[in-house]
Amino acid sequence: MNTPHYQAAQSVLRKVTGIDVKKAESEVKAYVESGAGRVELKNAVCIPNFAFAQYIDHTLLKPDATREEVIKLCTEAKENHFASVCINPNYVRLCTSMLRGTDVKVCTVVGFPLGATSTKSKAYETQVALEYGADEIDMVINIGELKSKNYDVVEDDIRAVVAAADARQRADRSAVIVKVIIETCLLTDEEKIIACVLTKNGGADFVKTSTGFSKSGATPEDIALMRKAVGAGFGIKASGGIRDYATAKKLVELGATRIGASASVKIVKEAGCLSPVTPDASGKY
Amino acid sequence: MNTPHYQAAQSVLRKVTGIDVKKAESEVKAYVESGAGRVELKNAVCIPNFAFAQYIDHTLLKPDATREEVIKLCTEAKENHFASVCINPNYVRLCTSMLRGTDVKVCTVVGFPLGATSTKSKAYETQVALEYGADEIDMVINIGELKSKNYDVVEDDIRAVVAAADARQRADRSAVIVKVIIETCLLTDEEKIIACVLTKNGGADFVKTSTGFSKSGATPEDIALMRKAVGAGFGIKASGGIRDYATAKKLVELGATRIGASASVKIVKEAGCLSPVTPDASGKY
Repeated sequence: MNTPHYQAAQSVLRKVTGIDVKKAESEVKAYVESGAGRVELKNAVCIPNFAFAQYIDHTLLKPDATREEVIKLCTEAKENHFASVCINPNYVRLCTSMLRGTDVKVCTVVGFPLGATSTKSKAYETQVALEYGADEIDMVINIGELKSKNYDVVEDDIRAVVAAADARQRADRSAVIVKVIIETCLLTDEEKIIACVLTKNGGADFVKTSTGFSKSGATPEDIALMRKAVGAGFGIKASGGIRDYATAKKLVELGATRIGASASVKIVKEAGCLSPVTPDASGKY
Repeated sequence: MNTPHYQAAQSVLRKVTGIDVKKAESEVKAYVESGAGRVELKNAVCIPNFAFAQYIDHTLLKPDATREEVIKLCTEAKENHFASVCINPNYVRLCTSMLRGTDVKVCTVVGFPLGATSTKSKAYETQVALEYGADEIDMVINIGELKSKNYDVVEDDIRAVVAAADARQRADRSAVIVKVIIETCLLTDEEKIIACVLTKNGGADFVKTSTGFSKSGATPEDIALMRKAVGAGFGIKASGGIRDYATAKKLVELGATRIGASASVKIVKEAGCLSPVTPDASGKY
Protein backbone atom coordinates (compact mmCIF):
# COMPACT_ATOMS: atom_id res chain seq x y z
CA MET A 1 0.00 0.00 0.00
CA ASN A 2 3.02 2.29 -0.28
CA THR A 3 1.66 4.05 -3.36
CA PRO A 4 1.71 7.82 -3.93
CA HIS A 5 -2.01 7.82 -3.14
CA TYR A 6 -1.43 6.08 0.17
CA GLN A 7 1.33 8.53 1.04
CA ALA A 8 -0.99 11.39 0.13
CA ALA A 9 -3.67 9.84 2.28
CA GLN A 10 -1.34 9.65 5.25
CA SER A 11 -0.43 13.26 4.83
CA VAL A 12 -4.12 14.23 4.67
CA LEU A 13 -4.82 12.11 7.72
CA ARG A 14 -2.04 13.80 9.70
CA LYS A 15 -3.28 17.22 8.63
CA VAL A 16 -6.92 16.54 9.39
CA THR A 17 -6.83 14.41 12.51
CA GLY A 18 -3.35 14.75 13.94
CA ILE A 19 -3.03 10.95 13.66
CA ASP A 20 0.08 9.53 11.99
CA VAL A 21 -1.02 6.31 10.27
CA LYS A 22 2.41 4.65 10.41
CA LYS A 23 2.78 5.55 14.10
CA ALA A 24 -0.78 4.41 14.82
CA GLU A 25 -0.09 1.13 13.05
CA SER A 26 3.03 0.53 15.20
CA GLU A 27 1.10 1.39 18.34
CA VAL A 28 -1.66 -1.05 17.43
CA LYS A 29 0.94 -3.72 16.66
CA ALA A 30 2.74 -3.13 19.98
CA TYR A 31 -0.57 -3.27 21.80
CA VAL A 32 -1.45 -6.59 20.16
CA GLU A 33 2.00 -8.03 20.79
CA SER A 34 1.70 -7.10 24.47
CA GLY A 35 -0.90 -9.91 24.68
CA ALA A 36 -4.25 -8.09 24.39
CA GLY A 37 -7.12 -10.33 23.30
CA ARG A 38 -8.96 -10.03 20.01
CA VAL A 39 -12.29 -8.81 21.45
CA GLU A 40 -10.69 -6.22 23.67
CA LEU A 41 -8.64 -5.02 20.76
CA LYS A 42 -11.62 -4.66 18.47
CA ASN A 43 -13.40 -2.58 21.07
CA ALA A 44 -10.36 -0.67 22.15
CA VAL A 45 -8.79 0.45 18.89
CA CYS A 46 -10.54 1.40 15.67
CA ILE A 47 -9.02 4.09 13.56
CA PRO A 48 -11.25 5.25 10.69
CA ASN A 49 -9.54 4.16 7.51
CA PHE A 50 -9.06 7.58 5.94
CA ALA A 51 -6.25 6.09 3.91
CA PHE A 52 -8.72 3.99 1.94
CA ALA A 53 -11.19 6.86 1.64
CA GLN A 54 -8.54 8.70 -0.35
CA TYR A 55 -8.97 6.15 -3.11
CA ILE A 56 -12.64 6.90 -3.52
CA ASP A 57 -14.59 9.23 -5.81
CA HIS A 58 -17.88 9.51 -3.92
CA THR A 59 -20.35 9.23 -6.77
CA LEU A 60 -23.93 10.28 -7.51
CA LEU A 61 -24.76 10.27 -11.19
CA LYS A 62 -28.40 9.18 -11.38
CA PRO A 63 -30.38 11.64 -13.50
CA ASP A 64 -33.01 12.32 -10.85
CA ALA A 65 -30.56 13.23 -8.07
CA THR A 66 -31.91 16.29 -6.24
CA ARG A 67 -29.94 19.26 -4.88
CA GLU A 68 -30.63 17.92 -1.40
CA GLU A 69 -29.04 14.58 -2.26
CA VAL A 70 -26.01 16.32 -3.75
CA ILE A 71 -25.61 18.43 -0.60
CA LYS A 72 -25.68 15.23 1.48
CA LEU A 73 -23.06 13.73 -0.83
CA CYS A 74 -20.73 16.70 -0.27
CA THR A 75 -21.22 16.54 3.52
CA GLU A 76 -20.36 12.83 3.54
CA ALA A 77 -17.32 13.47 1.35
CA LYS A 78 -16.02 16.12 3.75
CA GLU A 79 -16.58 13.89 6.79
CA ASN A 80 -14.90 10.89 5.21
CA HIS A 81 -12.16 12.72 3.29
CA PHE A 82 -12.95 11.06 -0.01
CA ALA A 83 -10.74 11.99 -2.96
CA SER A 84 -13.65 13.70 -4.69
CA VAL A 85 -17.36 13.89 -5.27
CA CYS A 86 -18.29 12.71 -8.77
CA ILE A 87 -21.48 14.37 -10.00
CA ASN A 88 -23.21 15.39 -13.21
CA PRO A 89 -22.17 18.72 -14.80
CA ASN A 90 -25.34 20.54 -13.69
CA TYR A 91 -24.23 20.19 -10.06
CA VAL A 92 -20.62 21.35 -10.44
CA ARG A 93 -21.33 24.86 -9.15
CA LEU A 94 -23.24 23.58 -6.13
CA CYS A 95 -20.40 21.20 -5.23
CA THR A 96 -17.59 23.69 -5.70
CA SER A 97 -19.40 26.14 -3.44
CA MET A 98 -19.85 23.43 -0.81
CA LEU A 99 -16.32 22.02 -0.98
CA ARG A 100 -14.22 25.18 -1.30
CA GLY A 101 -11.32 25.06 1.18
CA THR A 102 -11.69 21.33 1.89
CA ASP A 103 -9.51 18.44 0.75
CA VAL A 104 -12.33 17.03 -1.43
CA LYS A 105 -12.09 17.63 -5.16
CA VAL A 106 -15.00 18.10 -7.57
CA CYS A 107 -15.07 15.54 -10.37
CA THR A 108 -17.62 15.66 -13.19
CA VAL A 109 -18.43 13.70 -16.33
CA VAL A 110 -18.27 14.62 -20.02
CA GLY A 111 -20.02 12.97 -22.97
CA PHE A 112 -21.64 10.83 -20.33
CA PRO A 113 -22.68 8.04 -20.31
CA LEU A 114 -22.81 7.16 -24.03
CA GLY A 115 -19.64 8.90 -25.24
CA ALA A 116 -21.47 9.57 -28.49
CA THR A 117 -21.61 13.37 -28.56
CA SER A 118 -19.42 15.30 -30.98
CA THR A 119 -15.80 16.03 -30.10
CA LYS A 120 -16.54 19.76 -30.20
CA SER A 121 -19.31 19.28 -27.62
CA LYS A 122 -17.07 17.21 -25.34
CA ALA A 123 -14.38 19.89 -25.41
CA TYR A 124 -16.94 22.62 -24.70
CA GLU A 125 -18.54 20.61 -21.90
CA THR A 126 -15.08 20.28 -20.34
CA GLN A 127 -14.48 24.02 -20.68
CA VAL A 128 -17.79 24.87 -18.96
CA ALA A 129 -17.22 22.33 -16.17
CA LEU A 130 -13.81 23.84 -15.40
CA GLU A 131 -15.19 27.37 -15.61
CA TYR A 132 -17.72 26.25 -12.96
CA GLY A 133 -14.90 24.98 -10.76
CA ALA A 134 -14.45 21.26 -11.52
CA ASP A 135 -11.05 19.73 -10.66
CA GLU A 136 -11.36 16.42 -12.47
CA ILE A 137 -13.04 15.33 -15.72
CA ASP A 138 -14.23 11.79 -16.42
CA MET A 139 -14.94 11.60 -20.15
CA VAL A 140 -16.40 8.69 -22.13
CA ILE A 141 -14.62 7.58 -25.32
CA ASN A 142 -16.40 7.36 -28.66
CA ILE A 143 -17.24 3.66 -28.42
CA GLY A 144 -18.88 3.44 -31.84
CA GLU A 145 -15.79 4.79 -33.58
CA LEU A 146 -13.58 2.38 -31.58
CA LYS A 147 -15.81 -0.49 -32.74
CA SER A 148 -15.57 0.89 -36.29
CA LYS A 149 -11.74 0.81 -35.91
CA ASN A 150 -11.43 4.57 -36.44
CA TYR A 151 -8.74 4.84 -33.78
CA ASP A 152 -7.57 8.30 -34.87
CA VAL A 153 -11.07 9.67 -34.26
CA VAL A 154 -11.12 8.10 -30.78
CA GLU A 155 -7.69 9.47 -29.89
CA ASP A 156 -8.45 12.95 -31.26
CA ASP A 157 -11.65 12.96 -29.21
CA ILE A 158 -9.61 12.29 -26.03
CA ARG A 159 -6.96 14.80 -27.04
CA ALA A 160 -9.57 17.55 -27.50
CA VAL A 161 -10.84 17.08 -23.94
CA VAL A 162 -7.29 17.01 -22.55
CA ALA A 163 -6.50 20.20 -24.47
CA ALA A 164 -9.62 21.90 -23.05
CA ALA A 165 -8.53 20.81 -19.57
CA ASP A 166 -4.95 22.00 -20.05
CA ALA A 167 -6.19 25.36 -21.33
CA ARG A 168 -7.67 26.13 -17.95
CA GLN A 169 -5.29 26.27 -15.02
CA ARG A 170 -6.97 25.72 -11.70
CA ALA A 171 -6.89 28.34 -8.93
CA ASP A 172 -4.08 26.54 -7.07
CA ARG A 173 -2.14 26.10 -10.34
CA SER A 174 -2.34 22.31 -10.11
CA ALA A 175 -3.32 20.38 -13.23
CA VAL A 176 -6.82 19.24 -14.05
CA ILE A 177 -7.01 15.43 -14.02
CA VAL A 178 -8.65 13.78 -17.05
CA LYS A 179 -9.92 10.22 -16.75
CA VAL A 180 -11.06 8.29 -19.81
CA ILE A 181 -13.96 5.88 -19.46
CA ILE A 182 -13.66 3.03 -21.94
CA GLU A 183 -16.84 1.12 -20.92
CA THR A 184 -15.12 -2.26 -20.63
CA CYS A 185 -18.34 -4.30 -20.63
CA LEU A 186 -18.97 -3.34 -24.27
CA LEU A 187 -15.42 -4.12 -25.46
CA THR A 188 -13.41 -7.20 -26.38
CA ASP A 189 -10.08 -7.65 -24.58
CA GLU A 190 -8.30 -6.45 -27.71
CA GLU A 191 -10.46 -3.32 -27.81
CA LYS A 192 -9.79 -2.69 -24.09
CA ILE A 193 -6.03 -2.75 -24.71
CA ILE A 194 -6.38 -0.47 -27.75
CA ALA A 195 -8.53 1.93 -25.70
CA CYS A 196 -5.85 2.01 -22.98
CA VAL A 197 -3.18 2.86 -25.52
CA LEU A 198 -5.34 5.59 -27.09
CA THR A 199 -5.97 7.01 -23.60
CA LYS A 200 -2.24 7.28 -22.91
CA ASN A 201 -1.52 8.66 -26.39
CA GLY A 202 -4.30 11.19 -26.00
CA GLY A 203 -2.55 12.69 -22.98
CA ALA A 204 -5.05 11.74 -20.27
CA ASP A 205 -4.13 10.84 -16.67
CA PHE A 206 -6.33 7.83 -15.93
CA VAL A 207 -8.14 5.09 -17.76
CA LYS A 208 -11.46 4.19 -16.15
CA THR A 209 -13.49 1.02 -16.58
CA SER A 210 -17.18 1.93 -16.58
CA THR A 211 -19.95 4.50 -16.53
CA GLY A 212 -22.18 2.44 -14.23
CA PHE A 213 -24.98 2.86 -16.81
CA SER A 214 -24.19 -0.06 -19.12
CA LYS A 215 -24.40 -3.84 -18.79
CA SER A 216 -21.85 -4.25 -15.98
CA GLY A 217 -18.98 -2.60 -14.15
CA ALA A 218 -15.37 -3.16 -13.08
CA THR A 219 -14.01 -6.70 -12.88
CA PRO A 220 -10.72 -7.90 -11.34
CA GLU A 221 -9.71 -9.34 -14.72
CA ASP A 222 -10.19 -5.99 -16.47
CA ILE A 223 -8.19 -4.07 -13.84
CA ALA A 224 -5.31 -6.54 -14.18
CA LEU A 225 -5.50 -6.31 -17.98
CA MET A 226 -5.62 -2.52 -17.95
CA ARG A 227 -2.64 -2.33 -15.57
CA LYS A 228 -0.67 -4.47 -18.01
CA ALA A 229 -1.79 -2.28 -20.90
CA VAL A 230 -0.92 1.12 -19.38
CA GLY A 231 2.12 -0.01 -17.37
CA ALA A 232 3.18 1.38 -13.99
CA GLY A 233 2.66 5.00 -12.95
CA PHE A 234 -0.56 5.60 -14.86
CA GLY A 235 -3.92 6.09 -13.13
CA ILE A 236 -6.61 3.41 -13.26
CA LYS A 237 -10.09 4.05 -11.94
CA ALA A 238 -12.33 1.07 -11.22
CA SER A 239 -16.03 1.89 -11.20
CA GLY A 240 -19.46 0.39 -11.62
CA GLY A 241 -20.96 -2.13 -9.22
CA ILE A 242 -18.36 -1.70 -6.43
CA ARG A 243 -20.52 -2.01 -3.33
CA ASP A 244 -18.24 -3.38 -0.58
CA TYR A 245 -14.75 -2.98 0.87
CA ALA A 246 -13.61 -6.49 -0.07
CA THR A 247 -14.28 -5.79 -3.77
CA ALA A 248 -12.76 -2.31 -3.65
CA LYS A 249 -9.63 -3.56 -1.83
CA LYS A 250 -9.14 -6.39 -4.32
CA LEU A 251 -9.34 -3.97 -7.26
CA VAL A 252 -6.78 -1.69 -5.60
CA GLU A 253 -4.46 -4.63 -5.02
CA LEU A 254 -4.79 -5.52 -8.72
CA GLY A 255 -3.78 -2.05 -9.83
CA ALA A 256 -6.66 0.40 -9.41
CA THR A 257 -5.53 3.77 -8.03
CA ARG A 258 -9.02 5.21 -7.75
CA ILE A 259 -12.41 3.69 -6.99
CA GLY A 260 -15.70 5.17 -8.19
CA ALA A 261 -18.56 4.18 -5.89
CA SER A 262 -21.90 5.32 -4.55
CA ALA A 263 -21.69 2.98 -1.55
CA SER A 264 -18.53 4.79 -0.39
CA VAL A 265 -19.63 5.48 3.17
CA LYS A 266 -20.51 1.79 3.61
CA ILE A 267 -17.16 0.83 2.07
CA VAL A 268 -15.06 2.94 4.47
CA LYS A 269 -17.18 1.73 7.39
CA GLU A 270 -16.37 -1.82 6.33
CA ALA A 271 -12.71 -0.90 5.94
CA GLY A 272 -13.07 -0.01 9.61
CA CYS A 273 -9.85 -0.70 11.45
CA LEU A 274 -6.43 -0.60 9.86
CA SER A 275 -5.15 -3.92 8.57
CA PRO A 276 -2.71 -4.75 11.44
CA VAL A 277 -5.66 -5.64 13.70
CA THR A 278 -6.81 -8.49 11.42
CA PRO A 279 -5.72 -11.86 12.83
CA ASP A 280 -4.16 -14.45 10.56
CA ALA A 281 -5.39 -18.04 10.30
CA SER A 282 -3.66 -19.04 13.53
CA GLY A 283 -5.48 -16.29 15.40
CA LYS A 284 -2.30 -14.21 15.77
CA TYR A 285 -2.09 -10.62 14.69
CA MET B 1 -56.36 8.66 -38.87
CA ASN B 2 -57.20 11.93 -40.63
CA THR B 3 -54.44 13.82 -38.79
CA PRO B 4 -52.03 16.27 -40.40
CA HIS B 5 -49.37 13.55 -40.19
CA TYR B 6 -51.58 11.10 -42.04
CA GLN B 7 -52.30 13.69 -44.72
CA ALA B 8 -48.57 14.38 -44.98
CA ALA B 9 -47.95 10.67 -45.23
CA GLN B 10 -50.44 10.35 -48.08
CA SER B 11 -48.78 13.17 -49.90
CA VAL B 12 -45.36 11.54 -49.43
CA LEU B 13 -46.77 8.23 -50.57
CA ARG B 14 -48.19 9.78 -53.73
CA LYS B 15 -44.91 11.50 -54.42
CA VAL B 16 -42.74 8.46 -53.81
CA THR B 17 -44.77 5.58 -55.17
CA GLY B 18 -47.45 7.11 -57.30
CA ILE B 19 -50.02 5.35 -55.12
CA ASP B 20 -52.89 7.36 -53.72
CA VAL B 21 -53.75 5.81 -50.35
CA LYS B 22 -57.39 6.93 -50.36
CA LYS B 23 -57.83 5.71 -53.92
CA ALA B 24 -56.07 2.43 -53.12
CA GLU B 25 -58.29 1.96 -50.10
CA SER B 26 -61.43 2.43 -52.23
CA GLU B 27 -60.08 0.06 -54.83
CA VAL B 28 -59.38 -2.58 -52.23
CA LYS B 29 -62.84 -2.11 -50.77
CA ALA B 30 -64.48 -2.37 -54.19
CA TYR B 31 -62.43 -5.46 -54.93
CA VAL B 32 -63.53 -7.07 -51.68
CA GLU B 33 -67.14 -6.08 -52.15
CA SER B 34 -67.07 -7.65 -55.60
CA GLY B 35 -66.92 -10.99 -53.77
CA ALA B 36 -63.22 -11.90 -53.78
CA GLY B 37 -62.27 -14.43 -51.11
CA ARG B 38 -60.09 -13.66 -48.12
CA VAL B 39 -57.10 -15.76 -49.18
CA GLU B 40 -57.06 -14.44 -52.68
CA LEU B 41 -57.29 -10.93 -51.37
CA LYS B 42 -54.37 -11.36 -48.98
CA ASN B 43 -52.23 -12.59 -51.83
CA ALA B 44 -53.52 -10.10 -54.32
CA VAL B 45 -53.37 -6.80 -52.49
CA CYS B 46 -50.83 -5.68 -49.94
CA ILE B 47 -49.84 -2.06 -49.94
CA PRO B 48 -46.88 -1.27 -47.68
CA ASN B 49 -48.17 0.96 -44.91
CA PHE B 50 -46.05 3.99 -45.65
CA ALA B 51 -48.63 6.08 -43.85
CA PHE B 52 -47.70 4.51 -40.54
CA ALA B 53 -43.97 4.70 -41.33
CA GLN B 54 -44.37 8.47 -41.36
CA TYR B 55 -45.03 8.36 -37.62
CA ILE B 56 -41.72 6.68 -36.89
CA ASP B 57 -38.30 8.02 -35.90
CA HIS B 58 -36.10 5.05 -36.84
CA THR B 59 -33.81 4.95 -33.84
CA LEU B 60 -30.30 3.68 -33.03
CA LEU B 61 -28.85 5.22 -29.89
CA LYS B 62 -26.80 2.44 -28.31
CA PRO B 63 -23.29 3.72 -27.53
CA ASP B 64 -21.50 0.97 -29.44
CA ALA B 65 -23.38 1.45 -32.71
CA THR B 66 -20.88 1.25 -35.57
CA ARG B 67 -20.79 3.35 -38.75
CA GLU B 68 -21.88 0.24 -40.64
CA GLU B 69 -24.99 -0.11 -38.46
CA VAL B 70 -25.81 3.58 -38.91
CA ILE B 71 -25.49 3.23 -42.70
CA LYS B 72 -27.91 0.27 -42.58
CA LEU B 73 -30.29 2.40 -40.47
CA CYS B 74 -30.29 5.16 -43.09
CA THR B 75 -30.87 2.66 -45.91
CA GLU B 76 -33.83 1.16 -44.07
CA ALA B 77 -35.20 4.63 -43.37
CA LYS B 78 -35.06 5.56 -47.05
CA GLU B 79 -36.70 2.30 -48.13
CA ASN B 80 -39.50 2.59 -45.58
CA HIS B 81 -39.96 6.37 -45.67
CA PHE B 82 -39.67 6.82 -41.92
CA ALA B 83 -40.08 10.35 -40.58
CA SER B 84 -36.44 10.43 -39.51
CA VAL B 85 -33.43 8.52 -38.31
CA CYS B 86 -32.70 9.25 -34.65
CA ILE B 87 -29.00 8.83 -33.87
CA ASN B 88 -26.34 10.10 -31.46
CA PRO B 89 -24.66 13.45 -32.29
CA ASN B 90 -21.42 11.83 -33.46
CA TYR B 91 -23.29 10.31 -36.42
CA VAL B 92 -25.17 13.42 -37.58
CA ARG B 93 -22.72 14.18 -40.40
CA LEU B 94 -22.78 10.60 -41.67
CA CYS B 95 -26.60 10.59 -41.72
CA THR B 96 -27.02 13.98 -43.36
CA SER B 97 -24.64 12.91 -46.10
CA MET B 98 -26.60 9.68 -46.60
CA LEU B 99 -30.08 11.22 -46.49
CA ARG B 100 -29.59 14.44 -48.46
CA GLY B 101 -32.37 14.82 -51.03
CA THR B 102 -34.60 12.16 -49.45
CA ASP B 103 -37.80 12.58 -47.42
CA VAL B 104 -36.08 11.26 -44.26
CA LYS B 105 -35.05 13.83 -41.65
CA VAL B 106 -32.03 13.58 -39.32
CA CYS B 107 -32.95 13.68 -35.65
CA THR B 108 -30.36 13.73 -32.90
CA VAL B 109 -30.26 13.91 -29.11
CA VAL B 110 -28.97 16.57 -26.71
CA GLY B 111 -28.03 16.20 -23.02
CA PHE B 112 -28.76 12.56 -23.60
CA PRO B 113 -29.76 10.38 -21.83
CA LEU B 114 -29.38 11.88 -18.33
CA GLY B 115 -30.37 15.50 -19.05
CA ALA B 116 -27.86 16.51 -16.41
CA THR B 117 -25.35 18.52 -18.43
CA SER B 118 -25.22 22.30 -18.07
CA THR B 119 -27.66 24.49 -19.99
CA LYS B 120 -24.74 26.10 -21.82
CA SER B 121 -23.55 22.68 -22.97
CA LYS B 122 -27.03 21.69 -24.16
CA ALA B 123 -27.33 24.87 -26.20
CA TYR B 124 -23.87 24.35 -27.70
CA GLU B 125 -24.59 20.70 -28.46
CA THR B 126 -27.72 21.83 -30.32
CA GLN B 127 -25.76 24.43 -32.26
CA VAL B 128 -23.14 21.86 -33.35
CA ALA B 129 -25.79 19.28 -34.29
CA LEU B 130 -27.55 21.82 -36.54
CA GLU B 131 -24.25 22.99 -38.00
CA TYR B 132 -23.66 19.31 -38.93
CA GLY B 133 -27.08 19.18 -40.62
CA ALA B 134 -29.58 17.85 -38.06
CA ASP B 135 -33.26 18.68 -38.67
CA GLU B 136 -34.71 17.67 -35.30
CA ILE B 137 -33.39 17.84 -31.73
CA ASP B 138 -34.57 15.54 -28.92
CA MET B 139 -33.31 17.09 -25.68
CA VAL B 140 -33.62 15.68 -22.15
CA ILE B 141 -34.91 17.97 -19.38
CA ASN B 142 -32.97 18.59 -16.18
CA ILE B 143 -34.73 15.92 -14.13
CA GLY B 144 -32.87 16.66 -10.89
CA GLU B 145 -33.93 20.31 -10.95
CA LEU B 146 -37.54 19.28 -11.71
CA LYS B 147 -37.42 16.95 -8.69
CA SER B 148 -35.94 19.85 -6.67
CA LYS B 149 -38.92 21.97 -7.79
CA ASN B 150 -36.67 24.51 -9.53
CA TYR B 151 -39.09 24.88 -12.43
CA ASP B 152 -37.55 28.10 -13.74
CA VAL B 153 -34.23 26.30 -14.19
CA VAL B 154 -35.96 23.48 -16.09
CA GLU B 155 -37.85 25.89 -18.36
CA ASP B 156 -34.79 28.06 -19.03
CA ASP B 157 -32.87 24.92 -19.95
CA ILE B 158 -35.53 24.06 -22.56
CA ARG B 159 -35.71 27.67 -23.77
CA ALA B 160 -31.93 27.77 -24.32
CA VAL B 161 -32.09 24.75 -26.62
CA VAL B 162 -35.09 26.17 -28.50
CA ALA B 163 -33.22 29.47 -28.92
CA ALA B 164 -30.16 27.65 -30.28
CA ALA B 165 -32.45 25.81 -32.70
CA ASP B 166 -34.25 28.97 -33.78
CA ALA B 167 -30.94 30.72 -34.36
CA ARG B 168 -30.13 28.31 -37.14
CA GLN B 169 -32.45 28.26 -40.09
CA ARG B 170 -32.28 25.07 -42.09
CA ALA B 171 -31.30 25.02 -45.76
CA ASP B 172 -34.93 24.74 -46.91
CA ARG B 173 -35.92 27.55 -44.48
CA SER B 174 -38.21 25.23 -42.52
CA ALA B 175 -38.01 25.32 -38.74
CA VAL B 176 -35.96 22.94 -36.64
CA ILE B 177 -38.21 20.73 -34.50
CA VAL B 178 -37.34 20.50 -30.80
CA LYS B 179 -38.69 17.58 -28.78
CA VAL B 180 -38.37 17.53 -25.00
CA ILE B 181 -37.80 14.19 -23.28
CA ILE B 182 -39.26 14.20 -19.78
CA GLU B 183 -38.31 10.59 -18.83
CA THR B 184 -41.78 9.68 -17.56
CA CYS B 185 -40.65 6.55 -15.69
CA LEU B 186 -38.77 8.71 -13.17
CA LEU B 187 -41.64 11.17 -12.60
CA THR B 188 -44.85 11.25 -10.61
CA ASP B 189 -48.02 12.10 -12.53
CA GLU B 190 -47.88 15.61 -11.10
CA GLU B 191 -44.28 16.02 -12.28
CA LYS B 192 -45.23 14.70 -15.74
CA ILE B 193 -47.92 17.38 -16.07
CA ILE B 194 -45.55 20.10 -14.84
CA ALA B 195 -42.91 18.90 -17.31
CA CYS B 196 -45.47 19.11 -20.14
CA VAL B 197 -46.35 22.68 -19.19
CA LEU B 198 -42.67 23.68 -18.96
CA THR B 199 -42.10 22.11 -22.40
CA LYS B 200 -44.86 24.22 -23.94
CA ASN B 201 -43.76 27.36 -22.09
CA GLY B 202 -40.17 26.76 -23.17
CA GLY B 203 -41.23 27.00 -26.81
CA ALA B 204 -40.57 23.42 -27.89
CA ASP B 205 -42.63 21.51 -30.48
CA PHE B 206 -43.05 18.06 -28.92
CA VAL B 207 -43.02 16.47 -25.51
CA LYS B 208 -41.47 12.98 -25.56
CA THR B 209 -41.84 10.22 -22.99
CA SER B 210 -38.52 8.42 -22.66
CA THR B 211 -34.86 8.05 -23.50
CA GLY B 212 -35.02 4.26 -23.67
CA PHE B 213 -32.07 4.16 -21.23
CA SER B 214 -33.98 4.35 -17.93
CA LYS B 215 -36.25 1.97 -16.05
CA SER B 216 -39.04 1.78 -18.64
CA GLY B 217 -40.58 3.45 -21.67
CA ALA B 218 -43.84 4.81 -23.03
CA THR B 219 -47.14 3.62 -21.54
CA PRO B 220 -50.69 4.17 -22.85
CA GLU B 221 -51.58 5.91 -19.56
CA ASP B 222 -48.72 8.40 -19.93
CA ILE B 223 -49.61 9.23 -23.54
CA ALA B 224 -53.22 9.89 -22.54
CA LEU B 225 -52.08 12.01 -19.59
CA MET B 226 -49.62 13.98 -21.71
CA ARG B 227 -52.25 14.64 -24.38
CA LYS B 228 -54.51 16.06 -21.70
CA ALA B 229 -51.65 18.17 -20.34
CA VAL B 230 -50.52 19.71 -23.63
CA GLY B 231 -53.94 19.88 -25.30
CA ALA B 232 -54.62 19.43 -29.01
CA GLY B 233 -52.22 20.49 -31.74
CA PHE B 234 -48.99 19.87 -29.82
CA GLY B 235 -46.57 17.08 -30.72
CA ILE B 236 -46.22 14.00 -28.53
CA LYS B 237 -43.53 11.42 -29.16
CA ALA B 238 -43.88 8.00 -27.56
CA SER B 239 -40.61 6.12 -27.20
CA GLY B 240 -38.91 3.37 -25.24
CA GLY B 241 -39.91 -0.27 -25.43
CA ILE B 242 -42.20 0.03 -28.49
CA ARG B 243 -41.49 -3.21 -30.30
CA ASP B 244 -44.65 -4.06 -32.25
CA TYR B 245 -47.32 -2.48 -34.43
CA ALA B 246 -50.17 -3.15 -31.98
CA THR B 247 -48.41 -1.12 -29.27
CA ALA B 248 -47.39 1.66 -31.64
CA LYS B 249 -50.89 1.92 -33.10
CA LYS B 250 -52.48 2.08 -29.66
CA LEU B 251 -50.17 4.91 -28.61
CA VAL B 252 -51.01 6.85 -31.78
CA GLU B 253 -54.71 6.36 -31.12
CA LEU B 254 -54.21 7.74 -27.61
CA GLY B 255 -52.52 10.87 -28.86
CA ALA B 256 -48.93 10.17 -29.92
CA THR B 257 -47.99 11.95 -33.15
CA ARG B 258 -44.55 10.39 -33.39
CA ILE B 259 -43.12 7.01 -32.39
CA GLY B 260 -39.48 6.43 -31.50
CA ALA B 261 -38.49 2.82 -32.13
CA SER B 262 -35.58 0.61 -33.08
CA ALA B 263 -37.88 -2.21 -34.23
CA SER B 264 -39.35 0.11 -36.87
CA VAL B 265 -38.89 -2.19 -39.85
CA LYS B 266 -40.65 -4.99 -37.97
CA ILE B 267 -43.41 -2.56 -36.96
CA VAL B 268 -44.17 -1.45 -40.52
CA LYS B 269 -44.00 -5.05 -41.70
CA GLU B 270 -46.61 -5.89 -39.08
CA ALA B 271 -48.66 -2.88 -40.12
CA GLY B 272 -48.60 -4.69 -43.44
CA CYS B 273 -51.75 -4.12 -45.41
CA LEU B 274 -54.01 -1.15 -44.95
CA SER B 275 -56.87 -1.66 -42.55
CA PRO B 276 -59.73 -2.19 -45.12
CA VAL B 277 -58.43 -5.67 -45.91
CA THR B 278 -58.97 -6.95 -42.37
CA PRO B 279 -62.20 -8.95 -42.06
CA ASP B 280 -64.60 -8.30 -39.20
CA ALA B 281 -65.88 -11.05 -36.90
CA SER B 282 -68.47 -12.19 -39.47
CA GLY B 283 -65.74 -12.76 -42.03
CA LYS B 284 -66.84 -9.75 -44.08
CA TYR B 285 -64.50 -6.99 -45.11
